Formats: sequence, C-alpha cells, structure tokens
Amino acid sequence: MAASGSIEAKPKRQGRPPTIENARDRILDDAARLFARDGYDGTSLSELATSVGVTKAAIYHYFPNKKEIYEAIIVRTLEGLRRHVSQAAAGAPGPEEALARFMTAHADFFEEHYDGFLTMLVGYGGMENVVMIAEAQKLRDEHEQALRHIIADGIAKGAFRAVDIDVTSRAVLSMLNWMVRWFKPGKGRRAASFACDYYDLMFGGLRS
Amino acid sequence: MAASGSIEAKPKRQGRPPTIENARDRILDDAARLFARDGYDGTSLSELATSVGVTKAAIYHYFPNKKEIYEAIIVRTLEGLRRHVSQAAAGAPGPEEALARFMTAHADFFEEHYDGFLTMLVGYGGMENVVMIAEAQKLRDEHEQALRHIIADGIAKGAFRAVDIDVTSRAVLSMLNWMVRWFKPGKGRRAASFACDYYDLMFGGLRS
Repeated sequence: MAASGSIEAKPKRQGRPPTIENARDRILDDAARLFARDGYDGTSLSELATSVGVTKAAIYHYFPNKKEIYEAIIVRTLEGLRRHVSQAAAGAPGPEEALARFMTAHADFFEEHYDGFLTMLVGYGGMENVVMIAEAQKLRDEHEQALRHIIADGIAKGAFRAVDIDVTSRAVLSMLNWMVRWFKPGKGRRAASFACDYYDLMFGGLRS
Repeated sequence: MAASGSIEAKPKRQGRPPTIENARDRILDDAARLFARDGYDGTSLSELATSVGVTKAAIYHYFPNKKEIYEAIIVRTLEGLRRHVSQAAAGAPGPEEALARFMTAHADFFEEHYDGFLTMLVGYGGMENVVMIAEAQKLRDEHEQALRHIIADGIAKGAFRAVDIDVTSRAVLSMLNWMVRWFKPGKGRRAASFACDYYDLMFGGLRS
C-alpha cells in the first residue's frame, strides 16, 4: 500500500480546495434546510458555504451553480423515497399489508427528510436540467408503479374490490403528499401514524 | 332625486382616474391570471395595468399595493368556494349525496376559478394583512366545518360507519386540493368527474 500523503501515489490537485468528508451530501443537506426555510430565491451560495463551513469555491468544486444543487436535492430525495418505500413494502405478507407499509414508509421518509421533501415538491415542476428531469421522472414513475402494482395485486388476489387503479393510486399519493401542507415534524404524532389512519379509512370506506 | 352630474350632489374627486366598470373584480381576475402564470415576484403592477387596460394610477385607486391585490384574490376565492360548495350541498337528500356534492362542487369551483385557486393555495401561508388573514381563516374553517358536519351527520344517520371525522375530512380535502398539482383545466375530463371517482372510492373502500 502506498504511504498516505505520498505525492507520487496521489497527485495534489493544484488550486482545488481540500476534500470535505461526505461533501456532496453535507452540501445537499444544508442546502435543503436553507431552501425549505427561505425558498430558492432567498438562499445564496455564500450563505450555504457559511452553513457547511467551507468557502464558496469549495461549493463550486462539487456543483456548478445553485440550480444544480436544487435539482440534485430533488433527485436524491426521490431516490431515497423510492428505495425506502420499496424496501418497506417488499416481503409484506399480503396486499393489505403491502399497501399499509407503502403508505407509512412514504410518510416516514417524508418526516425524516422533511426539508428535502419540501424542496422536491416545490421544485419538481420547475426543473431545467434535462438529465435530472429524466432521472426524477423515472424515479417518480417507479414509485407510482410500485403503488399501482400493489393495488393490482390486491385486486387479483381478491383482497381489494375491483377499484380503478388510476383513481386509487392518485388518491393515496394525494393524501400522502398533501401532508406537506399541514404536517410539521416533531410536533406530536408521527406522519406514519396519520398515514395509517388514511390506510384504514381507504380500506374500510365510509359505507356503514 | 338629484340630477345626475350635479357637482353639489356628487362632488368631483379631483385627480382621480375615471371609474372602471366592475374595476375591482376585473383587476383581481387579471392579477390572478398573471400570478398563476408568472408567480408573485414575476408579476408587476405595470403589467397588470396594461392587461386590465388602465393606468397604474387606476390600479392604486383600488388597491394600495401588489400584496393587497394578492391577498384580496385569496379571500375572494375562498368566499366563492365557500358559497358555491354550501349552495351545492344544501338540500341534498342524504349524507351520501351531500358528501358527493361537496366534493364535486369543490372540484368544479377549482376548475372554473383555476387561477384564483392556484394563487390561493400558493399564497395562503404567506399572507401578511391580519384582517385578510382572519377573513381567510374564517372562510377556510367554515368550509372545513361544513364538510365535518356532513360526515358527522352521515355517521349519526347510519349512512357512514363510525369513521374518524378529522381523518376523513382531511383525506377528502387532500384529494381535492392536490388536484392543483396534476389537473389542467380544459384538457379532457372535468375536475368534478375525478372528484366523483374519489367519492366512490372513499365511500366503497378497498375491502373486497
């Protein structure tokens, strides 16, 4: 193994700022917090640099501009949501449990990554980088497809009545996503507990 | 009756622009369209004046500044929503029909007043005028109360099972309000038709 610090083994990148531990993630975490609090226009890269504890040049080492940071948060949030929810729903003993897990895991991820989620919901429609848009769309579609699959499976197995899959998946995601408008993390009940209530209501219906 | 045009009967207001027919409403209509399209920051009073076909001074005759116009749109939209939905639900033969009418009327009003609705949902949380905030809150509460009353009545009459009223009213409003994120007016199906699907799903539930 090469001795650490050897300039032959690892050439020094002249003029570049020193590497920050988990830099990309730390920048995105702090940026999400600032964007969620002050909005896109209300957040400057200088402020972000101060928050992360680095120079502005260090930020530019990882991202070309503010918009790219914004869109990276959106994609990272959708990636995390997709992964977290699919892991939670996988291996559910049946369609009812799979749907309940999908809903509670979505709500849990929303609560745990509140700032990123807010940024994602606010910023999704205004994305500009075509590669990032394609990536975000793919992740969103996969997430929706997973939900539709659970509903279709429930119908096929006779656990659910023959509801319209479009209507049902849209209703589920509307209830979960609208939480962003009224739910505040850390104030009483967990988001997943509200999602559980929604599941029970949706499953049982209103008919007496 | 005083002769029209008599300066004694109605003193001429010097330096003020001539009265515009339905001026307040016309200003709010055009402003809602501009705010919905370009956002609050992207809309100027000069642009608004051009759109209405008056001078900027004429705008200032009715509203002290842009923010007041913005908040007047929010209150007017909530007033219209409240009135339209309560009229639609009144006189329904039973709780099921009342809930279905509440939902379809809400969706109808949203579609018919799309720009104002968008402005209302985007701007509600950032209102500053305390009088307007109180008015908006009152209207929103009345709208929610009307929904809760329908659900409670349905449970009392045995038309609905004993669901949680908070959860159910929040679920209904989430589905309706989230439409703002995916529904575009004038492209195929009516918003009320989607609301009708939501009602059927909610009423019947998923249980097979």
